[in-house]
Amino acid sequence: MSTYRVAQVAAAGGTFEIAEREVPEPGPGEVRIAVEACGICHSDSLFVEAALPGVRFPLVPGHEIAGRVEALGEGADGRNLKVGDRVAVGWFGGSCGYCTPCRGGDFVVCPRLKVPGWAYDGGFADQVVVPADAPARIPETLAASDAAPMACAGVTTFNGLRRSAARPGDLVAVLGIGGLGHLGVQYAVAMGFETVAIARGADKADFARRLGAHHYVDSTAGVAVADALQALGGARAVLATAGSSDAITAAVDGLGPRGELVVIGAAAEPLGISPVQLLMSGRVVRGHPSGTAQDVEDTMAFSALHGIRPMTEVVPLDEADAAYRRMLSGAARFRMVLATG
Amino acid sequence: MSTYRVAQVAAAGGTFEIAEREVPEPGPGEVRIAVEACGICHSDSLFVEAALPGVRFPLVPGHEIAGRVEALGEGADGRNLKVGDRVAVGWFGGSCGYCTPCRGGDFVVCPRLKVPGWAYDGGFADQVVVPADAPARIPETLAASDAAPMACAGVTTFNGLRRSAARPGDLVAVLGIGGLGHLGVQYAVAMGFETVAIARGADKADFARRLGAHHYVDSTAGVAVADALQALGGARAVLATAGSSDAITAAVDGLGPRGELVVIGAAAEPLGISPVQLLMSGRVVRGHPSGTAQDVEDTMAFSALHGIRPMTEVVPLDEADAAYRRMLSGAARFRMVLATG
Amino acid sequence: MSTYRVAQVAAAGGTFEIAEREVPEPGPGEVRIAVEACGICHSDSLFVEAALPGVRFPLVPGHEIAGRVEALGEGADGRNLKVGDRVAVGWFGGSCGYCTPCRGGDFVVCPRLKVPGWAYDGGFADQVVVPADAPARIPETLAASDAAPMACAGVTTFNGLRRSAARPGDLVAVLGIGGLGHLGVQYAVAMGFETVAIARGADKADFARRLGAHHYVDSTAGVAVADALQALGGARAVLATAGSSDAITAAVDGLGPRGELVVIGAAAEPLGISPVQLLMSGRVVRGHPSGTAQDVEDTMAFSALHGIRPMTEVVPLDEADAAYRRMLSGAARFRMVLATG
Amino acid sequence: MSTYRVAQVAAAGGTFEIAEREVPEPGPGEVRIAVEACGICHSDSLFVEAALPGVRFPLVPGHEIAGRVEALGEGADGRNLKVGDRVAVGWFGGSCGYCTPCRGGDFVVCPRLKVPGWAYDGGFADQVVVPADAPARIPETLAASDAAPMACAGVTTFNGLRRSAARPGDLVAVLGIGGLGHLGVQYAVAMGFETVAIARGADKADFARRLGAHHYVDSTAGVAVADALQALGGARAVLATAGSSDAITAAVDGLGPRGELVVIGAAAEPLGISPVQLLMSGRVVRGHPSGTAQDVEDTMAFSALHGIRPMTEVVPLDEADAAYRRMLSGAARFRMVLATG
Repeated sequence: MSTYRVAQVAAAGGTFEIAEREVPEPGPGEVRIAVEACGICHSDSLFVEAALPGVRFPLVPGHEIAGRVEALGEGADGRNLKVGDRVAVGWFGGSCGYCTPCRGGDFVVCPRLKVPGWAYDGGFADQVVVPADAPARIPETLAASDAAPMACAGVTTFNGLRRSAARPGDLVAVLGIGGLGHLGVQYAVAMGFETVAIARGADKADFARRLGAHHYVDSTAGVAVADALQALGGARAVLATAGSSDAITAAVDGLGPRGELVVIGAAAEPLGISPVQLLMSGRVVRGHPSGTAQDVEDTMAFSALHGIRPMTEVVPLDEADAAYRRMLSGAARFRMVLATG
Repeated sequence: MSTYRVAQVAAAGGTFEIAEREVPEPGPGEVRIAVEACGICHSDSLFVEAALPGVRFPLVPGHEIAGRVEALGEGADGRNLKVGDRVAVGWFGGSCGYCTPCRGGDFVVCPRLKVPGWAYDGGFADQVVVPADAPARIPETLAASDAAPMACAGVTTFNGLRRSAARPGDLVAVLGIGGLGHLGVQYAVAMGFETVAIARGADKADFARRLGAHHYVDSTAGVAVADALQALGGARAVLATAGSSDAITAAVDGLGPRGELVVIGAAAEPLGISPVQLLMSGRVVRGHPSGTAQDVEDTMAFSALHGIRPMTEVVPLDEADAAYRRMLSGAARFRMVLATG
Repeated sequence: MSTYRVAQVAAAGGTFEIAEREVPEPGPGEVRIAVEACGICHSDSLFVEAALPGVRFPLVPGHEIAGRVEALGEGADGRNLKVGDRVAVGWFGGSCGYCTPCRGGDFVVCPRLKVPGWAYDGGFADQVVVPADAPARIPETLAASDAAPMACAGVTTFNGLRRSAARPGDLVAVLGIGGLGHLGVQYAVAMGFETVAIARGADKADFARRLGAHHYVDSTAGVAVADALQALGGARAVLATAGSSDAITAAVDGLGPRGELVVIGAAAEPLGISPVQLLMSGRVVRGHPSGTAQDVEDTMAFSALHGIRPMTEVVPLDEADAAYRRMLSGAARFRMVLATG
Repeated sequence: MSTYRVAQVAAAGGTFEIAEREVPEPGPGEVRIAVEACGICHSDSLFVEAALPGVRFPLVPGHEIAGRVEALGEGADGRNLKVGDRVAVGWFGGSCGYCTPCRGGDFVVCPRLKVPGWAYDGGFADQVVVPADAPARIPETLAASDAAPMACAGVTTFNGLRRSAARPGDLVAVLGIGGLGHLGVQYAVAMGFETVAIARGADKADFARRLGAHHYVDSTAGVAVADALQALGGARAVLATAGSSDAITAAVDGLGPRGELVVIGAAAEPLGISPVQLLMSGRVVRGHPSGTAQDVEDTMAFSALHGIRPMTEVVPLDEADAAYRRMLSGAARFRMVLATG
């Protein structure tokens, strides 16, 4: 009997501990993946803290998975996967297949979306078993530890930008340059947007420019973010990666006519946006839900083509608890990744 | 020297009084219209109460104007207008022509938009002078008193619906069936939407069905509006004509995946919508700003083709004050219109 | 051992004969349907004549199937189907699930699309076995013989119109009012388009108007079709149901600026459209490929809501050959349907 | 009395000669521009050869104009222009303002579009008088001889790409790398597309890669262009800059599902595209008509931001005839520009 390790939490708000489990066989339509790397996402805290419905303990989170296909359940080869394929699995960990969105081809808004670490044990582990529609292929040139964060942080920003109303040359702002935003800025630049990075503190200006940003707005500098954006002509899109509803709300008046606020951070407090802010200028607030396996594949292909990589701190799976705390503290530069083996 | 009547308010919050003025000559690029009918819109109260910047007194409101071209200023024939043409002028009373939205063809979000009754004297009068880009042609079969409300209430609902994400057959809800909503329901039905009317009280169900609604939701019935919409499958679009931010907010969870809340009522209080309500299902909140002269023309042509008319109470211009009070009280069924002559 | 009937053709260009076969068990992921009605489509002749690659004989065509679920193969209940469900299957008879379009949710352009009667035995039969992603639910109020043609003729026209660039009130022309067009006109009207029917002969004008068309253009009347459309303002969309490339080409100059020619008839001869016809007015020629199972469901729901039905001639399965000849002759009014039982 | 030079052609098919004319005063709503540079476009030959209706002689072509505002006619300051402003004027030389497209904001498909060198004397001159809606502002960092070709070759390719169905990361092919295509490739790369350059001959591969192309297809190499594109996954968009209808047609089967052929070259011979090529894969052929003054401004701003410049051969206005012949011969590398002063 062979075993594998998981980093699990025994109860809501607990600490991560390493446990041994028996290696599972993939069921019909399932795939087992040998995990090589798994990113830690801020939304993992929603599971650890049991802030979302349906969370079960002991909990193994992890929805930024990169590894290799190790075993195929019955029928799983219908998805054209082979043992040995390098694959990534993100927030999209499979969909039901028969609801209206699924049958209409919009899998990511499936109300029964299977998120790894929520619907089933996630990637803080040596092994993970996922539905066969979940994996995305990793390009040859992308290391596992770089691919992992692209399955959630990457696809969410890449997809949010490419599906926004902004077109090449338009002014696009990325609000926050942490785990999501430092990728968002790179994607925005490579898509040909005139790119504004917005963050707290003058010291981040240099970093923003190294990421390619054409402009930097220090949200603590005394000039309102909205005014700074209007001085640049008004944004066609603002990608709101920051967690705080107040910070998001403050950016709305920086949108130009028909400007779009793309919300990708899961804050629970209401946004303080009024109809009159949206009405006369035809502004839009859009919730953007990550992306499918195909979107993850597109994200990684785009990153490979344009030389875009996440900045990561890679630590062994055994140090999951410390890594998780470091992510929570905001000190990570910029994405914590657990490595196995 | 010939004169004409206006119904004017001398100071913020005042009453309407009839005054005589000298008939003005249209300047370069302007057109004088002999007003036949002018609707009273709830947003007129924003001017009367001086709740918007730049309101000047004595004030002549009125941005639902129907009449005939009476005189053309220099160069105004460039717009292809002739004396005697039947025309309507709504919230769009001309745009600047040189800002980025104007040069991009999106005139209605021009930051210098000239709203009749705000930028210049409006249609509570026998005569009005407007920029030559403001008038829309009225189809032969449409009476002036029916055309007038279409220049604002009509175009706002028609345009908000046709530019929403909803496609024929989709579930579309109209929130509120007053001056805007009773037109919105008719338009939604004629566009092939499965149409839900939402209003307060069981007694409005029959009326909603006479307008063509396929479903009626009584928002006071004890079942949450959002739940009622989800029971019907979830709305692809909700056209929010109701003034209250609370009522608008309450409808968000009735949207299906990728559903769109189209906001057309100018409430000032913040909407209480949180990122998590928008995020996973990819929902959208869209501000919709009325429409251009061409949009008004499209609205009237559509109404003529499909036999859609506003329900109006037509009273003489002399009774402007009483009519305005009746509109404010909510008793109007459904649009108050001032008639001249 | 129980048997069922099929109407089959033994070799390319042959006649239909009734044969008995053993009732098959559905394999994994498959569903067996008891056929109640199956429409005859003009594209069936492409199979009978072996004009498409991969056609095998004996051939059982039929991709306008309506019936009831009779048996579920292993795993087929994952699609939420139950024995007894009323379902229809059209041109979309299942997709591969792992190509880029499938993983992107655009199943109908799957290069391995499984068309009933091409990829597997079709619906000219008492029974048919299909992949579990193929069936669409039939609304209660729709008879099987009405539902059948909607799975191909219906969805193709409905979907082609709702995905065109035209919006409510726009001028839309339906070229040809045969099996496809007589549905297209009804859909166009119910979607709020100003609808033009184009056909050969003055005698069809009355029929076109009974279908709801606002205008009729007789293409044999001496005025070019393009000129007739321009006289009405230029079409925003032309739905080209007619088989002849010449007739399609002749309509292009009837498109207004940004007008869209939606091609749904599978003619093989080249269209004679030149770049200068498309260039300055930004015109578009769009190939429109039927629709998915969800699209078929949307089509039937829309038809049920708006009282739209195909006109059919229903004959017993035993008379398949005569019915097919009648379809080919153009005499059918308007859709031939085979009934079992 | 002051005079200025024009390079004019006396009759259809003639040679360019320099003539002196009296400097005109701009009329109401007009602007006089001191020309600094004017590009020579292949479509100028349509005027010289009188191949388009309404061409008048003596003819002064030129619709790639860069210069400075020198005088404003009455009312022309309404467009916010000032004497001394650096401006460019391209194919869009003003629109009528009152037709349906103009009132709908889609100026470039105005049926009365005023093309410089067709509707009025063009830019092969020291001076030109244009409608006030025609000029686009030139960014500080862009030289006049670089700005000029962007007003037609630039905007047509930039705008054709940004309005296509392709999104960042998609495979996009540019067919032809001459005067239009060498800009198209640069724009496609800067917009984040995976970019394929297609041209005749292996010797252009290096040049294509220097422009940034990720792939090069030699259309003379024995492998069909369509097959080469399919081997790369199928193009989401092909920008067809090449003049020949045959070359354009040959690219259609290189489109992937929902792929779009964007036609920007004004060939008169019919395209040999058949319905079956478009139908099952939902392909689109789209005519793309240059762009408005705002689009030209966007093009130049994008070029300035991303360091994109045309490759030009700049010669004095006096040598217009030789320069025009060189353009016709195909020897120009890549855009001939006439300079004044």
